[in-house]
Amino acid sequence: MTVASISIPDRMFAIRQKEAGGPLSYEEIEVPRPSKGEVLVKMDSAPINPSDLALIKGGYLERNYPFTPGLEGSGIVVMSGGGILAGMRKGSRVACSPKPGGDGTWAEFMLTSAMHTAPLPKGVSMEQGSMMLVNPMTTMAFVLMAKKEKHKALVNNAAASSLGKMLIRMCQLQNIPLINIVRRENQVEELKKLGATYVLNSSKSSFESELKELARQKSATLFLDAISGRQTSLLLRTAPSGSKVVTYARLSGEDIQADPTELINQGKKIEGFQLGSWLQKQKLLFKLRFISKVKRLLEKELSSNIRRTHPMAEVDKALAEYQNNMSEGKILLKA
Amino acid sequence: MTVASISIPDRMFAIRQKEAGGPLSYEEIEVPRPSKGEVLVKMDSAPINPSDLALIKGGYLERNYPFTPGLEGSGIVVMSGGGILAGMRKGSRVACSPKPGGDGTWAEFMLTSAMHTAPLPKGVSMEQGSMMLVNPMTTMAFVLMAKKEKHKALVNNAAASSLGKMLIRMCQLQNIPLINIVRRENQVEELKKLGATYVLNSSKSSFESELKELARQKSATLFLDAISGRQTSLLLRTAPSGSKVVTYARLSGEDIQADPTELINQGKKIEGFQLGSWLQKQKLLFKLRFISKVKRLLEKELSSNIRRTHPMAEVDKALAEYQNNMSEGKILLKA
Repeated sequence: MTVASISIPDRMFAIRQKEAGGPLSYEEIEVPRPSKGEVLVKMDSAPINPSDLALIKGGYLERNYPFTPGLEGSGIVVMSGGGILAGMRKGSRVACSPKPGGDGTWAEFMLTSAMHTAPLPKGVSMEQGSMMLVNPMTTMAFVLMAKKEKHKALVNNAAASSLGKMLIRMCQLQNIPLINIVRRENQVEELKKLGATYVLNSSKSSFESELKELARQKSATLFLDAISGRQTSLLLRTAPSGSKVVTYARLSGEDIQADPTELINQGKKIEGFQLGSWLQKQKLLFKLRFISKVKRLLEKELSSNIRRTHPMAEVDKALAEYQNNMSEGKILLKA
Repeated sequence: MTVASISIPDRMFAIRQKEAGGPLSYEEIEVPRPSKGEVLVKMDSAPINPSDLALIKGGYLERNYPFTPGLEGSGIVVMSGGGILAGMRKGSRVACSPKPGGDGTWAEFMLTSAMHTAPLPKGVSMEQGSMMLVNPMTTMAFVLMAKKEKHKALVNNAAASSLGKMLIRMCQLQNIPLINIVRRENQVEELKKLGATYVLNSSKSSFESELKELARQKSATLFLDAISGRQTSLLLRTAPSGSKVVTYARLSGEDIQADPTELINQGKKIEGFQLGSWLQKQKLLFKLRFISKVKRLLEKELSSNIRRTHPMAEVDKALAEYQNNMSEGKILLKA
């Protein structure tokens, strides 16, 4: 086992949750030590993503409590548990995510597998780098899904979010028509300035018929659904025959509602998307190419707008601020 | 154009619906004449299937009215519109189904494509032959789906239906564990006598935990859902990670409800199944082999129990009788 030359404290502060859906606390716990293939990351920044909200709400079924939330972040590898990759990472600035089921990034230190870290390119700051995994990779995954399954156009219903804006830039780059759905008129203007061609406002009474017509015209058959609930039902209704609705978040907090005749008679289907599971299913070579592609695009197409940073101790305030307005840039937690 | 030597009347009686969800009438309409590749079938028998109920209820989106319901039946080909296959069928006893969007089997005559007819084997009666397409082929399609997608076991929630009983026999034949769900205790006994190994009663309070445990034990990852509504939600909850729920009917009349976190975090998905679309996606050679396989099994594994026959003029009475008890054998309409 290789040990870093800097001294690692025995105890640290971390954001903890003791039971599913329970309150968060900021408390002192032990600093874990890496085994072979693992590294210890001294955390710098970590964003709040919709997937974190879902995690805190307790949607994940097989989680042990107490645990530390945070599905991505950035920091410096200060200790390696041994093994080639872990050893190579020592001393590097990395983007990182927890091991499946492991404690997350909302802490002063995180233990993770070396496989779950990626060195940050020189031009990328710790703040930008902390958002390098979930949203940029999800965006890329959606674009690859569209290409692989030969969807001619996409629909996304959380278009004003960071992910939504990345998707606009990526689809431009790849020449894939993207139909963006927002909830307010000022967001229509904002996204058009970003270069979006098709932006529909779901608050307008003509929304459903406009979406149906546009989806038909563009043969949009991949519907990305971050909202769930009645919105899923509407997407299914408006989607052309054979379309796939991919649900990747549950911003409405509601269950999916769907008319089964749409599935039975129109060959439509509903799937879920989670980046971790999606990556696990891909081959290693593909993953390495994929990650290097994401890195190349990180400074421009895949960068996120940062709204504010908060110290980790203020997690409740940060969460409230984020949930109050999820489309005005990212909130980062600083270790 | 070849014309049959027997005289075809200009007018006939047929069951008609004038608008989506509207009442049925038994009235006189013109007898259509076949074009090239088409045949005219003098109908003998036609069953009532759950898919007919859905059709009458108006779930299909792109249908022209008025129309004749009835998705399968049997009869004799009395006229060919020309073409090799249509010519070969002339004079044959056939199982038949309507062209997509065309008028159905609940009439004295049906015009259909020769491709939508299959000669009846000698030992098979007109009554049994009238049920040769929808249920036997759906059963076979489910078994093939299970094999192709490597599901180790199946769950079916309308196990006491004709289709459910066929599935029990087919899964026995193919050695695939099948978990059957019924609603009454006497159905548990009935299906066990038929040879079913696993039968769960959804009216029992322990049902959900029993299903969850059994599905886990048997690695059942293909869930066939004829009920929809809250039942879909329950199936999704109890299904192991990565499972697929296939909805093929909507007996509850309710919309699907589903917790999106099951899809997102557990990789589960929901699809629809309709025999016609499924067959369309298969290659011709596969279809021919498939149909001949169904025919071989028709006298035993794929036979249906007939509860009663009614003349077509009594369609309302027949429908009421069927909906009153869908698991005590088939109701046939006689032309």
